[in-house]
Amino acid sequence: MSQPARAAAERLEQQIRFLLEIDRLKRVERQNILTDGSRRENSAEHSWHLAVLALCLAEHADAEGIDLFKVVRMLLIHDIVEIDAGDAFLHDAAELAELAELEAAAAERIFGLLPPDQGRELMALWHEFDAGASAESVLAQALDRVQPALLHEATDGVIWEKYGTTHDQIQAKMEVVGRAAPVLWERIQDIIGKARAAGRLR
Amino acid sequence: MSQPARAAAERLEQQIRFLLEIDRLKRVERQNILTDGSRRENSAEHSWHLAVLALCLAEHADAEGIDLFKVVRMLLIHDIVEIDAGDAFLHDAAELAELAELEAAAAERIFGLLPPDQGRELMALWHEFDAGASAESVLAQALDRVQPALLHEATDGVIWEKYGTTHDQIQAKMEVVGRAAPVLWERIQDIIGKARAAGRLR
Repeated sequence: MSQPARAAAERLEQQIRFLLEIDRLKRVERQNILTDGSRRENSAEHSWHLAVLALCLAEHADAEGIDLFKVVRMLLIHDIVEIDAGDAFLHDAAELAELAELEAAAAERIFGLLPPDQGRELMALWHEFDAGASAESVLAQALDRVQPALLHEATDGVIWEKYGTTHDQIQAKMEVVGRAAPVLWERIQDIIGKARAAGRLR
Repeated sequence: MSQPARAAAERLEQQIRFLLEIDRLKRVERQNILTDGSRRENSAEHSWHLAVLALCLAEHADAEGIDLFKVVRMLLIHDIVEIDAGDAFLHDAAELAELAELEAAAAERIFGLLPPDQGRELMALWHEFDAGASAESVLAQALDRVQPALLHEATDGVIWEKYGTTHDQIQAKMEVVGRAAPVLWERIQDIIGKARAAGRLR
């Protein structure tokens, strides 16, 4: 085997270790359920759904010149840290700070399985998503809020009711949607208003 | 509401109908199982996995100047037709022709839920994937073969054995990998050789 071929084969083994490791995201369960109510959603299929949301809904973004591929890449990898840290549905500040530490360590471990250049690239994308400072990360975070809200609407808000979610908690989570896309914000306000009227949100 | 705002809101309702409809892909089960053997994979999480494979493995593609975002978009939407047509593990020509008809009708119905311009765009991507004529679709198809092979290797080929898969059937399916990326082809040949030696492939 030539030297470049050997280098490619070695990179491939690192990439495969990463790709098999992230298979575990298919076993991380989220709070929300599928549209037919049959079971909870997992974080891998959630990530897929979000990426398709981005393809369909990016046109509603308020910001101009958004790099849509970057939004999609962020959404594809943003939940991988949950393999170690789990999916959290938290509103408590101390718990959120602890979670942030767990997630940072998870990112180091999991993206660190890749060849260093690729690991750094995905790590930078993950940090960008998390920081929510760029137009791309604002849109990605907004879609990450919009998708479960659509599933909650399709399943009559039973999960919000089950977990005793309050109107203020949801509004705080949705704030980024207002910054990202006014049309989506209006739609989400409609969902929240109806859920409140139906007694699903405290 | 202004006329542009009303038009955006109407488009959004069509987009939401499509996005809720494709939630059903999370309930389409594939033959292969997760790396821990706990259950069968579904087509939504499979599509997510493939998109991340593309981000990590595109560098091994033989073709130059590949539009990676197009590859990712194809992989995100290529299995949506299975909502109506199911996931098939077929080698029979007559059954494959019948399946192709079912899938074409499914694409019309499901992509037809979107605003016409977006529906046409995703339909064109789906056709391009299916035809396998462009460099992007060759790479996308190859990754769609490589991912289950990696899961089969991780689970000791039990599914190949369970379904009585033959060496010739697998080699025919893998042909596109050879055209897409020699490094991936070598790795897949290694997987197949070991599965054969272990008696997992007839």
